[in-house]
Order: sequence, then C-alpha cells, then structure tokens
Amino acid sequence: MIGIFDSGLGGLTVARAIMATLPGYDIVYFGDTARTPYGSKSRETVSRYAIENTHFLMENGAKIVVIACNSASSVATKQLTGKFTIPLFEVITPAAELSVSVSTKTRIGVIGTRATINSGIYEEKIKKINPAAKVYSAACPLLVPLVEEGWLKKPETRMIIKKYLIPLKARQIDTLILGCTHYPLLKDDIQRKIGKKVSVIDSSLAVAANVKAYLDQHPETDASLSRSGKADFFVSDITDHFEKIANSVLKQKISLNHILL
Amino acid sequence: MIGIFDSGLGGLTVARAIMATLPGYDIVYFGDTARTPYGSKSRETVSRYAIENTHFLMENGAKIVVIACNSASSVATKQLTGKFTIPLFEVITPAAELSVSVSTKTRIGVIGTRATINSGIYEEKIKKINPAAKVYSAACPLLVPLVEEGWLKKPETRMIIKKYLIPLKARQIDTLILGCTHYPLLKDDIQRKIGKKVSVIDSSLAVAANVKAYLDQHPETDASLSRSGKADFFVSDITDHFEKIANSVLKQKISLNHILL
Repeated sequence: MIGIFDSGLGGLTVARAIMATLPGYDIVYFGDTARTPYGSKSRETVSRYAIENTHFLMENGAKIVVIACNSASSVATKQLTGKFTIPLFEVITPAAELSVSVSTKTRIGVIGTRATINSGIYEEKIKKINPAAKVYSAACPLLVPLVEEGWLKKPETRMIIKKYLIPLKARQIDTLILGCTHYPLLKDDIQRKIGKKVSVIDSSLAVAANVKAYLDQHPETDASLSRSGKADFFVSDITDHFEKIANSVLKQKISLNHILL
Repeated sequence: MIGIFDSGLGGLTVARAIMATLPGYDIVYFGDTARTPYGSKSRETVSRYAIENTHFLMENGAKIVVIACNSASSVATKQLTGKFTIPLFEVITPAAELSVSVSTKTRIGVIGTRATINSGIYEEKIKKINPAAKVYSAACPLLVPLVEEGWLKKPETRMIIKKYLIPLKARQIDTLILGCTHYPLLKDDIQRKIGKKVSVIDSSLAVAANVKAYLDQHPETDASLSRSGKADFFVSDITDHFEKIANSVLKQKISLNHILL
C-alpha cells in the first residue's frame, strides 16, 4: 500500500491528490490528531513523531511512505531516510522544482508553518536548482487552525491571509508555494489576495505527480503495491469535528479508525 | 510544592495568580507543549494526558495539584480524583461559584474551547448552585491559537472575539465566565466587545482564591508545602517561541526545562 502521514487532517489534500493521480492504488493514511499541530513544535519533537508514524504505516502494509506534512518534511526527512530503507517522499522538493520551472522572474514566495519557514528548506532546495533565484518566506501559523475550524471564505480569514501576504506582495513575487498541506483549502482566497498574475503552487499536486513518476521508473516497487482501490484512514484521536473535517477535505464520507500509537 | 499543569502555556495565568495569592509557596509547573492544544481533542485522549501530567508533577514534589486547563478540568477531573489521593483543584467550580455570586439577573455566559463547552460542565455546576440560572455557552476555538501567536490587541482578533460573542450578547447575559486559561490575556478586548456592564469572571483568579481557602482550612496540607519561593517550569517541547510566550504571560524572564513524558 501507499502510506501517507500528516500531523492531522491537512494531509488528506495529499491523499486526495494521490487517489486522483494513481486511481486504484491502495492507500493507508495516518493523521496524528492526538498531537496535532506539528508546525509550532520543535525539530526534535516533530522528528520523534515522524519516526513513530512511519513505523505505524509500515506495520500496516505501507511499502512506500509519503510525508504529507510540510513541517515533518522540513525537519524530519533526513532522520527518516537514515532510519528507513523503503522509498520515502516528502512534499518540499516537488513543490520547489515546480516553482522554479513555472517562475518567470524567479522571485518565489513561500508560505508555511513556523517550523517549515524557520527550517529554511524551501530556500535551500530552490537555490540548489537555481542559485540566482530570489526566495521570500512568510510563516502563517494561524492558517492551520482557521482551516481546522472550517473558517474557509470568512472575512476574518481573508483579512489574516491579506496581512500575512503583505511582505510577499511587496517583494513582487511571481510564484507562491503553498508550503503547508492545509493551504490548498484556502487556495482561492490566497490567489485573490496575492493577485491573479502570481502562479500558486499546490504542493499536494506536486508530490502526487512525483510519486507517479517514481513508480513509472521503478516497476519493481510499483509491482509491490496492491491495487484493490482500498483506502484505510487511521487517526490517533477521534472527535465528531475531526470526522466532519475529513469528509469535507475528501469530499466523500470516510470512516476514521482510532488507534493509540 | 504546589503542582500546576496545563496543555501548554495558557495555564501560566493560573500560576501567576497563585504566585500572587500565595507568595513564597514553591510551585512546579508542567505545560504539555508537545501535545498542545487539548481543547479540540477527545475526552479519552485529554484524560490520558491529564493522568500522565499529574504523575509527573507528583514525581517532582507536588503535594497538591491544580488542573490549570479548563479542557482537562472539564473532561478529566473525575478520572483524576478516582486515581489520585492528593488534593486536586480544577478551574471550573470556583469560576462557576463566583459567577453565581456576582450575577444580578443570573443570565450567565460561558466561553471556552470545544472540549469544555461540549462537556456542558459549567452549566451543570452553575445549575447545581442555582437551578433557576440561565446559562448560555459559546465555543471559541480560535482564541487559543490567536493568544499563542501573540495576536493580542489586533483588529482581526477583535473581529473574531466580536463574532464569537454575538450569540451571548443576544441573550443579554450579565456575567461572562472566561472558561479557558488563555482568555485572561484577551480580557480587555472581551470586556469591550461584550459591554462594560457585564461582569467578566477570570477563572485563574477564582482558582487561586480557592486554593488559598483550602489551605487556610487544612493546616496539615498547608504545612506539607515548601515555601522557599522556588518556581520550576517544565514543558514537554521547547522552542524560542514558547519561551517568548512564557515570559510575556508571566511578565518576567523564566527558564523552561524540557522533559520527555
């Protein structure tokens, strides 16, 4: 199966993109809702959680694992690749590559959680591809709780998005990376506030394309993945509210299975 | 020592109130920053965390424990009192009692996290004191992240407070309980939006008075508490941002000690 984990339910945007890009492939999702969010926590704590989550997915049949969380991708990828031998996919590199390829003036903005932005990883990845690129970042820590509350399309959310984007607008970016798996749910408002000329990069779509490309090039890994169209969703805590969010992100009714890590 | 725990750093408002009400008493504080927040998580998960936190405080010298978190007080107090024999103090009862005593028309509003409001505990406690009381509640889940971001006195925060208070204003409450240990930091704006005629009850002050009254009545417990003016602060995760918030809540520079639970 394709394993996918996130700090909570934002990573379902990645699950949704993978299910659309690789229809029929079985997936197993884990959302760490008992310890969510990761974006304001330390590198050490997020890495510890990421290792536990990867173990859990492998025990439940994952042959490849997608880190569907920018915060965990930013601070834990090195530790995970040092510890596990299965193919691991993070959400940073595909979005960084895509941003460089679509950017016309290589003035690239990145928004994300505090953990992601403080790690400086997007800048590092983008400059590895194009050392002349200008990269401007802004931490937007309130957008995750706003999405998790379902405050989409509300005036308060729009004001907060506008405030966060002011420094990036001032830098005249031509491309903006949504560096958090929650943000695709706010994409329309973000596009409106940053301006319609700016290309907005959705990392969930970029990582799904990346997984597909890898499987095309690695038929033996591809053959190891089951394809019965099954999708299992596990969470470390469950409430009615979490179920509502999950259904709204995936636009279908799913059942969340509660497990203790 | 007096043990105090919270899901994170909001409970420092309670520590601050206890240090002011009982000067010189030693305190040991634990903030579960690696798993914060509790307010959107389930009863089972919050209870499990509360038991672990209480164990930790007792191992570190606590002879009495204050549950400085409304979410944990709401859903875990019964389990904790069944499991531990030391005196335990929760933040709900003192605030409920104070609200009934100051309310003139017994139209009482309560704001808190989703866990606290869904538990219905304030209504239950208030109606036990005065069965004729009218109690109106509103969950305000975005106020905790706004406080943790330090977005005090910002227009967006004021708009969100106003929106949350609309249903309570419509009910013409005369008293409003701040049913979350983060909210005292927003007290001025909450008072302004609900109107100056409404009495706003700060549960951190109410619980500090409650602890003092208990110690006055139980000299043997009082004698068991050390009084060298020491205050130890432990957290399960540490970042620069957490240190900044802690210093700003306590209005003094403290050092946070990181421990793994």
